[in-house]
Amino acid sequence: MHVSEMLAQSRAEGKPTFSFEFFPPKTAQGVQNLYDRMDRMHGFGPKFIDVTWGAGGRLSHLTSEMIKVAQSVYGLETCMHLTCTDMEKSKLDEALKEAYQAGCTNILALRGDPPREQEKWEATKGGFRYAKDLVKYIRDRYGNHFDIGVAGYSEGCDDNKNVDQLVDHLKEKVDAGATFIVTQMFYDTDIFLDWVKKVRAKGIDIPIIPGIMPIHTYAAFLRRANWTKCHIPPHWTEALEPVKNDDAEVREVGKGLVADMCRKLIDAGILHLHFYTMNLAQATRMVLEELELLPDVESPLQKPLPWRPSLGLNRRDENVRPIFWRNRNRSYVARTQDWDEFPNGRWGDARSPAFGELDAYGIGLKGTNEQNIKLWGSPVSIKDISDLFVRYMEGKLNSLPWSEAPITKEAESLQQDLIDLNRRGFLTINSQPAVNGAKSSHPVYGWGPRNGYVYQKAYLEIFVSPEHIAEVITRIERDPDLTYYAVNKEGDLKTNAPGDGPNAVTWGVFPGKEIVQPTIVETVSFLAWKDEFYTLGQEWANCYSSINPSRYVIEDLMDTWYLINIVHNDFHVEHGIFPLFEGLQVANMEKPLHRTGTPTPIATNGDAASNGDSGVKDRKPKLDELVDAAKSAASAVTNGLNSLKVSN
Amino acid sequence: MHVSEMLAQSRAEGKPTFSFEFFPPKTAQGVQNLYDRMDRMHGFGPKFIDVTWGAGGRLSHLTSEMIKVAQSVYGLETCMHLTCTDMEKSKLDEALKEAYQAGCTNILALRGDPPREQEKWEATKGGFRYAKDLVKYIRDRYGNHFDIGVAGYSEGCDDNKNVDQLVDHLKEKVDAGATFIVTQMFYDTDIFLDWVKKVRAKGIDIPIIPGIMPIHTYAAFLRRANWTKCHIPPHWTEALEPVKNDDAEVREVGKGLVADMCRKLIDAGILHLHFYTMNLAQATRMVLEELELLPDVESPLQKPLPWRPSLGLNRRDENVRPIFWRNRNRSYVARTQDWDEFPNGRWGDARSPAFGELDAYGIGLKGTNEQNIKLWGSPVSIKDISDLFVRYMEGKLNSLPWSEAPITKEAESLQQDLIDLNRRGFLTINSQPAVNGAKSSHPVYGWGPRNGYVYQKAYLEIFVSPEHIAEVITRIERDPDLTYYAVNKEGDLKTNAPGDGPNAVTWGVFPGKEIVQPTIVETVSFLAWKDEFYTLGQEWANCYSSINPSRYVIEDLMDTWYLINIVHNDFHVEHGIFPLFEGLQVANMEKPLHRTGTPTPIATNGDAASNGDSGVKDRKPKLDELVDAAKSAASAVTNGLNSLKVSN
Repeated sequence: MHVSEMLAQSRAEGKPTFSFEFFPPKTAQGVQNLYDRMDRMHGFGPKFIDVTWGAGGRLSHLTSEMIKVAQSVYGLETCMHLTCTDMEKSKLDEALKEAYQAGCTNILALRGDPPREQEKWEATKGGFRYAKDLVKYIRDRYGNHFDIGVAGYSEGCDDNKNVDQLVDHLKEKVDAGATFIVTQMFYDTDIFLDWVKKVRAKGIDIPIIPGIMPIHTYAAFLRRANWTKCHIPPHWTEALEPVKNDDAEVREVGKGLVADMCRKLIDAGILHLHFYTMNLAQATRMVLEELELLPDVESPLQKPLPWRPSLGLNRRDENVRPIFWRNRNRSYVARTQDWDEFPNGRWGDARSPAFGELDAYGIGLKGTNEQNIKLWGSPVSIKDISDLFVRYMEGKLNSLPWSEAPITKEAESLQQDLIDLNRRGFLTINSQPAVNGAKSSHPVYGWGPRNGYVYQKAYLEIFVSPEHIAEVITRIERDPDLTYYAVNKEGDLKTNAPGDGPNAVTWGVFPGKEIVQPTIVETVSFLAWKDEFYTLGQEWANCYSSINPSRYVIEDLMDTWYLINIVHNDFHVEHGIFPLFEGLQVANMEKPLHRTGTPTPIATNGDAASNGDSGVKDRKPKLDELVDAAKSAASAVTNGLNSLKVSN
Repeated sequence: MHVSEMLAQSRAEGKPTFSFEFFPPKTAQGVQNLYDRMDRMHGFGPKFIDVTWGAGGRLSHLTSEMIKVAQSVYGLETCMHLTCTDMEKSKLDEALKEAYQAGCTNILALRGDPPREQEKWEATKGGFRYAKDLVKYIRDRYGNHFDIGVAGYSEGCDDNKNVDQLVDHLKEKVDAGATFIVTQMFYDTDIFLDWVKKVRAKGIDIPIIPGIMPIHTYAAFLRRANWTKCHIPPHWTEALEPVKNDDAEVREVGKGLVADMCRKLIDAGILHLHFYTMNLAQATRMVLEELELLPDVESPLQKPLPWRPSLGLNRRDENVRPIFWRNRNRSYVARTQDWDEFPNGRWGDARSPAFGELDAYGIGLKGTNEQNIKLWGSPVSIKDISDLFVRYMEGKLNSLPWSEAPITKEAESLQQDLIDLNRRGFLTINSQPAVNGAKSSHPVYGWGPRNGYVYQKAYLEIFVSPEHIAEVITRIERDPDLTYYAVNKEGDLKTNAPGDGPNAVTWGVFPGKEIVQPTIVETVSFLAWKDEFYTLGQEWANCYSSINPSRYVIEDLMDTWYLINIVHNDFHVEHGIFPLFEGLQVANMEKPLHRTGTPTPIATNGDAASNGDSGVKDRKPKLDELVDAAKSAASAVTNGLNSLKVSN
């Protein structure tokens, strides 16, 4: 969406809005941290985010990548900065093309600072001299695809203190095709508002977005004021000087000063505020809180869909996703990024989409081996692994190999049941409670337009030991309300689903609209998720050296356990799935699984197979065989034929 | 679906099933009556119906038409008879092509009786001599598209009493490609079962369907037995003879005899019964009732969708329809029969379908002018018309120009509200109550697979006088839960629907499936329905001569009243729409609308326009203007500015 459209919406609703500026961090860890922060700051409700142009080599590529990730993974509208500094036309073209493909529709066209080694700004050979040339170039190449912003300097810029001359330049940039203005930071609202009058008097009538710099520390406050040469009103210094050595107090006082400034701007009819976050959340959050612009817990941001929609190119209409990747959003976006057409309305609309390979960037485990070992410890028994899951369910661990983010609010109603299952050695991977028509404004379950109702079928995805899988399936098949898909690493799949079509597990009913069914359970995508699931497990195992017992434990689970998803189709029943596991408990959970001094992976075929002759020991029994054996054993018991032996 | 597949299903479920045979009636009225009967008999739950071949001219064309109507309008699987009598290859080809296009997948291939004027059967020039040739021809032309049945004669046929020789012929027909056998009628089960053994001994293993002739009158019973020369067991005559002069008693006794015969067949493992209905329902119904094979009121036939699905070619997957034609199913099928693709899943899947013209067969008013005048009388006032609607809502009138069938069970819960509205001059055209998750097996609202839940948004389509339309719309727009489309004859449309997409007003949630949303409200189809609605009104007016006052009354309504549909989007609210009309009442309903001696149609522009200058009298005010005027009048009142005049 164009920035100018968003601003028009704010004006129409008479509601102040805001946006955040980020810059490309210097280290890979910094990038990861910033992504996590962008994700959290999405919850503040910015209309869009800016990413500054990292002039030169790796950093410029990083800007493009951040734009792409923000659009497609975090569903944030973006505005990409682009400078003339160090940019030949071919590099500009590449940057614009990447922004276009990422679904970005806004560019902030700047001249840029002179490169570090140069005193004075000079145009790159084959590049542009002035921002206005860049504006014109983008307009010529892309028509109205991009909304183009330019910089406004209310107190002069680095190499030109003549404000009137800069307003003339601004007029030229607007005439070249710019459609909004973002200003340099400032602290003196009066100077700023006078400048706005001057700009308007010049006949410039496009929106002006003030750049707001929250105060993080006193030193940074002074440094930035000095750097931009902007005027500091005396009462600011008077208020900050006495507390300058207490960072927390500086932020507290600064919050008030910046918020007062914002209020004056809003009163003057300037409804959109652009925050220079300096890649930090706290100071900006404090100002927004003071201005009462943050969504509160009782009425959080209105979510258009139960999952975060991607704003990637061709992806804005996407409205169905399999439930399996709920805790791995980024991987889903990456594995489907090459799809020409996204499943809209019904999953079946996509023509046999193929999921991307597992080796692409962003799909594997986050973090280094060392970080992961620190996070998840060194399990030597099923009990150790079960403890990890329990800690995650209790909110004491922020991630698991299959869940990138902490447990959600939604899982709270299931928390005790989930903890109980994990304690008994049933490892829960994903779940949702049944919801029988909550209001679309519900703080936890709500999504979609107002005055609607949302629904969910209870869902549980669980990693089950070979000793229990047949019993679990037998119990499921007795209840006509339950459907399941069970699979092992090799892809031995068993299901009782009626037909090939998807099962809608989340849907919403809204005034004047078709039923929206954004989350489904379905075969093809479950098999793609299965590959990812077992690969992530193997990657976790690989964090440990080949002689480390933890490696064997995890590998053994991956080799022999079953992944099963279960849907309770009667969404009126709140706790329909958990009773299935009544009385089941994995045996010998505490027993360390490795054999000391035996560095080959343990090749167990599961308990059910252990009765077999030695000649068939190497063949894993098929799920069908396991379940049939369990059933005939059960019916043998029923028939009182206790002496009958279960054959493989 | 192939007959042999249906039989396999019956066998798998171990449940007796049945089918009905009809023949093409001689008169147009007879055809109409038979269609109505076929529609009602659909409710008995036959697996399929047969239509005999009307050899020669008009009648053969009628067989093709009946097959098409049964498949597409009544959703009945069919088996079309085809004979060698009087059929050149070109005629055969045409009949097969028409059956194919109608979605029919079963042919009963017969030699046929000799033409009336001939004693002995002779092959037509360029045609076939034996049924086996016909079987082979169809197999060659259509591969396995058609399931092909042939006749079995357990007691010999017209010109051959040698049963063994006939079994040889039967073997030849089977060898030529026949896949099921339908037998001649019989009364003696022992003879029949012996014959079945003989057939099986011959190596014929395709299913055998016994032809059952229920007893309508004693004379017909004797005539048919004599005609087919079949053996009548003595106890049949003994039982029927004493009551032969009492038709009702004959049917009662006959029911028992035929049902006993059917039970013997079922006990012998013959699970499918084919009834020679002779185009009558009663005797067949009585036998089925005696056999307890009819669906009962508490658990009626399972409906796959809330409307009767068409089985036309390409139409079997159709799963969305606009609500507007709910009482005119046949017209909807006719007006959409040329669509290449049917809306499946979502309405949007159909690429801008254009509705067929209004002059096609089956779309206009049923019945002759005289019949319609007899049915609906000669209204001279709005009160007279309103009385008609009230009688229809009370179940005392079986049709209205816009509703072909009597009021449905579903409308019962709304009956009093509907009657009340019609009494006050608001003519209700179509409606459904809100349903918040009834079981899919619910006797009135249920449809779709077992263990599901079905939902409805309350819907009301109503014909509103110009004096009230602005007030009604103003009231609707005050309630965020209501959406509407209002239109007049000229197509002046007003709506508050959000966006162009459809509003799902009926949907279902089923185990392991996507949400099904088979009924919608939507713009394009509403405009097509609007044309049909006003045309039907005009056709009703045209039943009266041009100087008849009734003509003027109806035409006046058509020219000046508004058709409006209203959806209450909160399906938790049971009676959400009716309170809208509180306190509204059409004025002077009793006043005859015609001006005596003035044979030109009354050109009123509605009350709201009557304040206008004489210069603009001929221009109808737009709906937007009417509503705006009503709103500013209301706000004038609110502001205490009672003297302000509403301007047009």
